[in-house]
Amino acid sequence: MSLLVVGSIAYDTVETPFGKVEDSLGGSALYFSAAASLFGPVNVVGVVGSDFDASKISFLKKRGVNLDGLYMESGKTFRWGGRYYEDMNKRETLFTYLNVFERFQPRIPEEYRHSEYVFLANIDPELQLKVLEQIQKPKLVVLDTMNFWINGKRAQLQTVLKRSDIIVVNDEEAREMTGEFNLIKAIKRIVEYGPKSVIVKKGEHGAMLYQDGKFFFAPAFPLEKVVDPTGAGDSFAGGFMGYLAKTDKTDFANLKKAIIYGSTIASFNVEDFSFNRLKTLTMEEIEQRVELFKELTAF
Amino acid sequence: MSLLVVGSIAYDTVETPFGKVEDSLGGSALYFSAAASLFGPVNVVGVVGSDFDASKISFLKKRGVNLDGLYMESGKTFRWGGRYYEDMNKRETLFTYLNVFERFQPRIPEEYRHSEYVFLANIDPELQLKVLEQIQKPKLVVLDTMNFWINGKRAQLQTVLKRSDIIVVNDEEAREMTGEFNLIKAIKRIVEYGPKSVIVKKGEHGAMLYQDGKFFFAPAFPLEKVVDPTGAGDSFAGGFMGYLAKTDKTDFANLKKAIIYGSTIASFNVEDFSFNRLKTLTMEEIEQRVELFKELTAF
Repeated sequence: MSLLVVGSIAYDTVETPFGKVEDSLGGSALYFSAAASLFGPVNVVGVVGSDFDASKISFLKKRGVNLDGLYMESGKTFRWGGRYYEDMNKRETLFTYLNVFERFQPRIPEEYRHSEYVFLANIDPELQLKVLEQIQKPKLVVLDTMNFWINGKRAQLQTVLKRSDIIVVNDEEAREMTGEFNLIKAIKRIVEYGPKSVIVKKGEHGAMLYQDGKFFFAPAFPLEKVVDPTGAGDSFAGGFMGYLAKTDKTDFANLKKAIIYGSTIASFNVEDFSFNRLKTLTMEEIEQRVELFKELTAF
Repeated sequence: MSLLVVGSIAYDTVETPFGKVEDSLGGSALYFSAAASLFGPVNVVGVVGSDFDASKISFLKKRGVNLDGLYMESGKTFRWGGRYYEDMNKRETLFTYLNVFERFQPRIPEEYRHSEYVFLANIDPELQLKVLEQIQKPKLVVLDTMNFWINGKRAQLQTVLKRSDIIVVNDEEAREMTGEFNLIKAIKRIVEYGPKSVIVKKGEHGAMLYQDGKFFFAPAFPLEKVVDPTGAGDSFAGGFMGYLAKTDKTDFANLKKAIIYGSTIASFNVEDFSFNRLKTLTMEEIEQRVELFKELTAF
């Protein structure tokens, strides 16, 4: 099945208690693709500057990531700098230079327009809408967003919500979006906005899924060392949607499995900086950890 | 099997976003007993003042809670006052009047000394040690504590840890006890102090169990309304140990089930103030919710 992601491509400078990387590959579209491509092909739409070194993403091409929608504009690639402390659930943004990403207008290549699985990574809801307008008949639209858009472009976000099947948020965003502190109430409120299902990412506390009155909880894989949490959410989404697109089933039972695959891949991603771990990750390693996930909650 | 708890008996004044109760029944020994007695008899050791209204705990007697170890001293019963806000994972203590609890010296009645399952609720580690000295040959000792003792009576706490099989802590306490921010590392460090198993209570994020390199995660039951979190930890411990004492098996598989029973009972407890919910709770309701717990994580 065809899977599309529209999001950011960035050079990240990241400092954690375990080290620092400068101008390393990052961005939601790439983390998503690196994860999803473990299951099958991915169509990417994004923008880079003329300083972008395409050789850095050759590993994605080899994995079947279609980069025809990767546009190069004159100017610099989006740069983000952040620092994580001991509590990796929180991070400090040191700088954000949007550069070419500031004028990003998603043009969906002709061959992508039939994509059935669509991930709208965390970008301006107006752009997310423009993406949807160019897709013919998506089977499943998954939406990511952040506090910045929840507060700044609420009306536009509501329009995207109406056209999305699943929204992925963290607990803070769920609360901010609804004004409900109780997470269960917040989730049920979000469903009234449009999406049939809600996924809440809770960092070290795992993830939860809600649909039609039913809940599912996945713990975070117990890791003694989280080296760099950057990209955890997007690699989770990539694993989640990669699995869904490959199996081409969107019933609750399959969504649950997809959550586990997403959590598994995210747990590998945070074991090293940038794409270091996702680059070498194999399906065999994933399946082994999925088995361990089963043992974590079975009683 | 015989189950013993030594802890506090209190009158609590509690304010939450859903209301307020004054001088309502509380204390770790009573929350533990109310939960554990759903599975079988419980031996209680604690102290109350001459102002204590024994009729308030007649519901416990009816459930097979042995109160021969409940001593009445001249003076007032321990009083605690606290306030919870929207984020029920945090609470503010408004007052603590130890009263007769300040001079509490646990005397274990002769008939309790053969108790096989022992819960050392959160009291001074010196008193916890005195309890253990009076018990002949416990099969399983479960220890609760708090930051106050971790910081103030570290040496004594370490001695109790050496004689405990399982410790129950929250994530903050696990970090404080070990100086490790990463919870997985903190847990593995605690095991070096003595207990074979560690249970971490994470409030709305559920609970986790560690033993011999194996982890188990239980989510918190999804509740739209948490009326009063007071006693959640002790009713969890009561359900956990009540189930263990009844089934009389302490292998990892049974510990996992016990965690689920503990989580289930705690989830009922927080649905109302004080003992209002635990008083009416039935085994049938518990079993129904345990079934729902299975669905929450099965994939």
